[in-house]
Amino acid sequence: MELKAAPEMTPDISEPALHDGEQTSAIAEQRLATRYDEIRRRTTSLCAPLEIEDYVVQSMPDASPAKWHLAHTSWFFETFVLKAAFADEAVSKDYAYLFNSYYNAVGERTPRAERGLISRPTVAEVYRYREAVDERMRALLESAEEPLLRRLGATIELGLNHEQQHQELILTDLKFMFGRNPLRPAYREPRLSGGTEVPPVRWLRFAEGLRQVGHDGNGFAFDNELPRHSVFVQSFQLADRLVTNEEFRAFVDDGGYDKPRFWLSDGWNARNSHGWTAPLYWEQTEGRQWRIMTLAGLRDLEPNEPVCHVSYYEADAYARWADARLPSEAEWEVATEGVEVQGNFLEDEYFHPQPLAVASAEGRLSQLFGDVWEWTRSPYCPYPGYRPAAGALGEYNGKFMCNQMVLRGGSCVTPRSHIRSTYRNFFPPEARWQFSGIRLANDA
Amino acid sequence: MELKAAPEMTPDISEPALHDGEQTSAIAEQRLATRYDEIRRRTTSLCAPLEIEDYVVQSMPDASPAKWHLAHTSWFFETFVLKAAFADEAVSKDYAYLFNSYYNAVGERTPRAERGLISRPTVAEVYRYREAVDERMRALLESAEEPLLRRLGATIELGLNHEQQHQELILTDLKFMFGRNPLRPAYREPRLSGGTEVPPVRWLRFAEGLRQVGHDGNGFAFDNELPRHSVFVQSFQLADRLVTNEEFRAFVDDGGYDKPRFWLSDGWNARNSHGWTAPLYWEQTEGRQWRIMTLAGLRDLEPNEPVCHVSYYEADAYARWADARLPSEAEWEVATEGVEVQGNFLEDEYFHPQPLAVASAEGRLSQLFGDVWEWTRSPYCPYPGYRPAAGALGEYNGKFMCNQMVLRGGSCVTPRSHIRSTYRNFFPPEARWQFSGIRLANDA
Amino acid sequence: MELKAAPEMTPDISEPALHDGEQTSAIAEQRLATRYDEIRRRTTSLCAPLEIEDYVVQSMPDASPAKWHLAHTSWFFETFVLKAAFADEAVSKDYAYLFNSYYNAVGERTPRAERGLISRPTVAEVYRYREAVDERMRALLESAEEPLLRRLGATIELGLNHEQQHQELILTDLKFMFGRNPLRPAYREPRLSGGTEVPPVRWLRFAEGLRQVGHDGNGFAFDNELPRHSVFVQSFQLADRLVTNEEFRAFVDDGGYDKPRFWLSDGWNARNSHGWTAPLYWEQTEGRQWRIMTLAGLRDLEPNEPVCHVSYYEADAYARWADARLPSEAEWEVATEGVEVQGNFLEDEYFHPQPLAVASAEGRLSQLFGDVWEWTRSPYCPYPGYRPAAGALGEYNGKFMCNQMVLRGGSCVTPRSHIRSTYRNFFPPEARWQFSGIRLANDA
Amino acid sequence: MELKAAPEMTPDISEPALHDGEQTSAIAEQRLATRYDEIRRRTTSLCAPLEIEDYVVQSMPDASPAKWHLAHTSWFFETFVLKAAFADEAVSKDYAYLFNSYYNAVGERTPRAERGLISRPTVAEVYRYREAVDERMRALLESAEEPLLRRLGATIELGLNHEQQHQELILTDLKFMFGRNPLRPAYREPRLSGGTEVPPVRWLRFAEGLRQVGHDGNGFAFDNELPRHSVFVQSFQLADRLVTNEEFRAFVDDGGYDKPRFWLSDGWNARNSHGWTAPLYWEQTEGRQWRIMTLAGLRDLEPNEPVCHVSYYEADAYARWADARLPSEAEWEVATEGVEVQGNFLEDEYFHPQPLAVASAEGRLSQLFGDVWEWTRSPYCPYPGYRPAAGALGEYNGKFMCNQMVLRGGSCVTPRSHIRSTYRNFFPPEARWQFSGIRLANDA
Repeated sequence: MELKAAPEMTPDISEPALHDGEQTSAIAEQRLATRYDEIRRRTTSLCAPLEIEDYVVQSMPDASPAKWHLAHTSWFFETFVLKAAFADEAVSKDYAYLFNSYYNAVGERTPRAERGLISRPTVAEVYRYREAVDERMRALLESAEEPLLRRLGATIELGLNHEQQHQELILTDLKFMFGRNPLRPAYREPRLSGGTEVPPVRWLRFAEGLRQVGHDGNGFAFDNELPRHSVFVQSFQLADRLVTNEEFRAFVDDGGYDKPRFWLSDGWNARNSHGWTAPLYWEQTEGRQWRIMTLAGLRDLEPNEPVCHVSYYEADAYARWADARLPSEAEWEVATEGVEVQGNFLEDEYFHPQPLAVASAEGRLSQLFGDVWEWTRSPYCPYPGYRPAAGALGEYNGKFMCNQMVLRGGSCVTPRSHIRSTYRNFFPPEARWQFSGIRLANDA
Repeated sequence: MELKAAPEMTPDISEPALHDGEQTSAIAEQRLATRYDEIRRRTTSLCAPLEIEDYVVQSMPDASPAKWHLAHTSWFFETFVLKAAFADEAVSKDYAYLFNSYYNAVGERTPRAERGLISRPTVAEVYRYREAVDERMRALLESAEEPLLRRLGATIELGLNHEQQHQELILTDLKFMFGRNPLRPAYREPRLSGGTEVPPVRWLRFAEGLRQVGHDGNGFAFDNELPRHSVFVQSFQLADRLVTNEEFRAFVDDGGYDKPRFWLSDGWNARNSHGWTAPLYWEQTEGRQWRIMTLAGLRDLEPNEPVCHVSYYEADAYARWADARLPSEAEWEVATEGVEVQGNFLEDEYFHPQPLAVASAEGRLSQLFGDVWEWTRSPYCPYPGYRPAAGALGEYNGKFMCNQMVLRGGSCVTPRSHIRSTYRNFFPPEARWQFSGIRLANDA
Repeated sequence: MELKAAPEMTPDISEPALHDGEQTSAIAEQRLATRYDEIRRRTTSLCAPLEIEDYVVQSMPDASPAKWHLAHTSWFFETFVLKAAFADEAVSKDYAYLFNSYYNAVGERTPRAERGLISRPTVAEVYRYREAVDERMRALLESAEEPLLRRLGATIELGLNHEQQHQELILTDLKFMFGRNPLRPAYREPRLSGGTEVPPVRWLRFAEGLRQVGHDGNGFAFDNELPRHSVFVQSFQLADRLVTNEEFRAFVDDGGYDKPRFWLSDGWNARNSHGWTAPLYWEQTEGRQWRIMTLAGLRDLEPNEPVCHVSYYEADAYARWADARLPSEAEWEVATEGVEVQGNFLEDEYFHPQPLAVASAEGRLSQLFGDVWEWTRSPYCPYPGYRPAAGALGEYNGKFMCNQMVLRGGSCVTPRSHIRSTYRNFFPPEARWQFSGIRLANDA
Repeated sequence: MELKAAPEMTPDISEPALHDGEQTSAIAEQRLATRYDEIRRRTTSLCAPLEIEDYVVQSMPDASPAKWHLAHTSWFFETFVLKAAFADEAVSKDYAYLFNSYYNAVGERTPRAERGLISRPTVAEVYRYREAVDERMRALLESAEEPLLRRLGATIELGLNHEQQHQELILTDLKFMFGRNPLRPAYREPRLSGGTEVPPVRWLRFAEGLRQVGHDGNGFAFDNELPRHSVFVQSFQLADRLVTNEEFRAFVDDGGYDKPRFWLSDGWNARNSHGWTAPLYWEQTEGRQWRIMTLAGLRDLEPNEPVCHVSYYEADAYARWADARLPSEAEWEVATEGVEVQGNFLEDEYFHPQPLAVASAEGRLSQLFGDVWEWTRSPYCPYPGYRPAAGALGEYNGKFMCNQMVLRGGSCVTPRSHIRSTYRNFFPPEARWQFSGIRLANDA
């Protein structure tokens, strides 16, 4: 995922100071310092169960070693905050090369697919690097002059959101690594919620009309959520819950992976070249039972859990088989407007989508946030009037707005404070290693 | 391009009969028979300059041999019309295998990239096959019972539009083949229009509002143009003419191909892996003069002609360099509503985009139709409420709606009767061998 | 195959003149002129059954279009003989680019894999080019001064041997092209010899000793056959005939293609990446009958014919399965010393290996020459004391002496006058499209 | 390299017992136990400078992680010795899967290119695995019945030679890993010998004659060195020392990498596809000084050191440029017969080729053993009469005898006790990561 979007130009962290004077600003500083500590600590606590060896491996070009995530997120603060504040040299020019992800304006970098070739710096050295950055960041946050913080507040806020994105990636990438290991090691012990029987899907109808989508500018948002704008949405229906493993298995059992009529042309090619016959992490035993790899190791497939780790192509094929379609991102956003952000998140530490806790109330949508990212049918495009930020941080703003699809709602490994109704995640339609699932929609 | 969309469910050819009785229907038949003859003859006349050898070569996986185009378009009528009318066998089971493009429901087929391995059937045999199909089609059109024609009229109409698409492809594919031949052979003699000095771009402003886009159902349309629906369009500006070679050369001279900041991430990768330094068919002499390959052979680059044979990535990078953007397909359609379809088309037989004939009248858009397909920033998606047709002809309807971008307006090798304001062409963002160019837009 | 070896330094065509004076030389000229005509005519007669379309296709990177073969062999005479004799310009600089195969010293050339992209020059133009070259060659051969011919005789002789190699390639490449066409067209009508029942293999034993191998310098030889030199050969046994289809089918039926223990490591990888389950051109019907593609089209597998179109890896695996091995090239040459060159050759016009005509006489080796090239276990290396020729013709002498295996004895599409006991053919161990088969050997 | 050859059928470890009775055998046991301890300890001592992270990375498909080497060598003893002795289960079925290299007969295994994806078992667990194997091996060696040891002695001896091969690979693979790290970490501190000025090459002449090559059966040998046999060797010359960096730099400076005439055809392709411009580990600074990566980090190129890390293609091109050639393996073996095995080996702990210590005595060959493996012009083939061993250990005997070239003499990372005059190492002609260099030869 990387950092995919530049900061809103006037985010909350600096904005209040403009209106409310120094006192409020001091509070904001304090809050920012606290949040900085909390978020940075969360990252390292996610690595607590790891052996040193687990930090090193890059299991595919799209994934990164845990060590790299730890260093890159620190490099971000060093490069975009500390150097801007103190105008001094990097801790190491080599680190700048090693841990830059894709910022052309900031210089050369290790090719993405070669992040797993780098045994040095060691994990201990990377932690020391983190600590050195944290120490200087804390000094900055505690003592900085008001104008300096005002100038850098938005970037720090961006860095924290960036860090949260990498928290999610640490877990998805570790899962992929453990999943490729014939030993199928567990990241940690299993932990299961209860969950009821899953009731049949109920369809909620939404009337057509001119709607507003996009972020309203209160609080932090990535620039790809801006500007808020009008869109005409035709009437539609939305399923009140996610598609389950049991439902998806019916598609598998019906030969869904062998019938081109359900698939996009590119999806059919992907299915053939990769030999897909089920979602990622599903394994069939010799007795034809389905097993599933989780961050707690291999176990039986749980029918009531939301299906997860499907590509856009599989989500789309399933929807066609089910005589439905995927929602557009505008539909999804309109439907979730005003819904409270609650669900199964990183902080719940299931690290796996959970069965529906209680049946949805009549006329209410469940599982909108957390559990799994929901594929939409919308290609990732700039909103009308979208303007990239200036400088290196904005370099990439439009850069990924091609050949990717939007996902909404966050997953079981997304931090709760990171997600919101307007949040636009995006991945290529072939991607399966994220916690991505399916909610059905239909015309109404 | 292939046939990319299924027919509208109730196209004009059968519709009138329902309202106006047999007499009108007889006229419709006659007109259809006449159009059938005209369009089929146009295809073969486009091949008149060819040597037999020219019919055989497949110059890249996306292009097809002329022989294949001739056979495939006939196979289309045989498979979807004659077999439906007479329920008899194909002329040859082998032909069904050889000349099916991508219809899974109709059976197996030659892999797309292997169309150039097939020396037999010979060109003469393919022409005999065309004649056999034409003879039976004419018999059908002249003598068929009213209900039969009513049932098949839409498919025949679709077949004719399909044939026109392949007329364009015959020329684009031949150009690519001749362009890869070190001899740079000419398809035919050059033919040039006059053309004035190109005036500076003037920007036309369009106000925001709720608009209608999509085809209204009067006359033929592909199903991807349906249904007509509301869309909210923000205010925007559109350049009154196309980008010229001279303007694009300024981008080249400014190092536009070497600066990642102008490029989408995938575009930069494409530029690097293909080594792009200029549009397709531009060649630099040792004296650093630009030459250009045309269907009339190699000649000097003409500064006033619209730039052509650029990928979406190059169009997008140029727009960013020019501090503008590409239009969305809705903007393009809104702007062209009510504009008469005129321009430089296949029938004009320039087979190359021409300089602006006369300066645009104040407040008028020029070069909207013909000359070059205009890249839009819109990924190719289904319209709200879109429904694929039933059966094999509809099999692929959604099938290509992923990873492609929409182009509008037709080109100098598009038949005039084939194009309209609502027409949606689409190609992957890397494609360059089509006559694709650039019109700039901007927020207003 | 290309021209793979440079001429012997003192071939017969010029040699006699040095000893015997002008009269003998005149006879040699006459003979050379006659042979020139015969061999050049043979090439075009092999193309007589072709449609124009058949000349154009390149069916894989290692094969070339028939048109290219016709032009390249003429280019050879033009470049290395006519330009040396008359020091004038090439017929066309473009032709020099188009029809150079791999001579770096002679300049740039069309990439090998792109020979099938070139529809022009047309077949008619290529024939005119051949005629222009022939006319000038005949003038040279008839009227040239003695010293000139003495200087060029070896090169002309080389050109004729080169032409014969391309005669074989024309047929192997056409067979491959027709074999990839779903119509399985026939190059010409079938023609079958009789053939007896194939008797069991008898093994001939050869005693160890110091032997001489390599060409003795009397008559033409490629430089890779030189110099004649001593080699110590351990005692060995050689099968008196080739392995048949029936014998090879027993290997197939025994699961030979599924058992890694019979295969070289690289061979097993090749088998897996290509999905080999039988020799090239074997096809299994739904009734599990084996059919075989020939230059006369598809027909039943004939059990008594020598197995053909196997790679080195398959030949080696078969030998291991049969508890034997392949002969070394020295063993093969020692065993064939003094054996008359007779067999099923190009001139016999079977264009397919034939069953053993009569059982071998006791103690005699059969099928040594013609029918199929026999894979040896010897990598293609320079002989001790080998020296490449000077100039462009010698440029490539050592150039192919790596990663290739030696084959011996010629095939059913080799001209009889082209082959001899010391002749060293060579192909990469994966190659299957040549007429390559198996004779077993063993330690004694 | 892997274990490339099966044991001689009657190696010294069991042989003496047959002749000399139990006492000798007890000594042999003791010696074997001692050698087992020494060699196994050497392996772990080579890993002493490593951080845990360094054990995990696989830097290319041909290299393996140090952790894998440690485990695989233990797996070898467990699989082929302990299981044969005690007929019990493996320590872990998973380990059998993870640490099998390529023995098809022993079961499935991790794909070679995926050895770096496996973070677990940890390094500590692998060391525990080694210790468990060592404990049981020691128990076996100390207490085993005579017949059991006699049966297993050859396999244990093979396992120790196998272990020594992996000692060399541990260092070559670590060097490649550190060489790809932008930090260019050092495996350990530099250590340099003195070395004189390098005198001009003197050529030693060897007369033609019937010679014996191959191992005579006294002491251990791999089966690819057997049987000893006669070979006729033409007279030849051999350079009295290795080619130096300074000499090779002259080739580089002369444009040797840009002139196809010096290169084999496949070599030229390799040079182009890899972009080779100098040996592996040579780096040019901006000031155009040559630097070289070593196991002690990056430093200036030392002109007097033997050139190292060249492929066969580069060695061959250099020789052609120098108007010489590479020796055949028979020439090399004939020339070194009776020469004492001394030189710069693993035990000297330079881990880098050293300049000539003293000028060679007149008529003596220097640097034959140690320093660098010397490429020969001989493809790796079976010796006449070669017979693979039975069972899994012999499975692969012929398996690699294709597409590889023989190297002779050992290198600065080869254990001294591992090498001998008849030892045949082999690598594909493209390989550069081994310590491979050049000694010139010529016809005489």
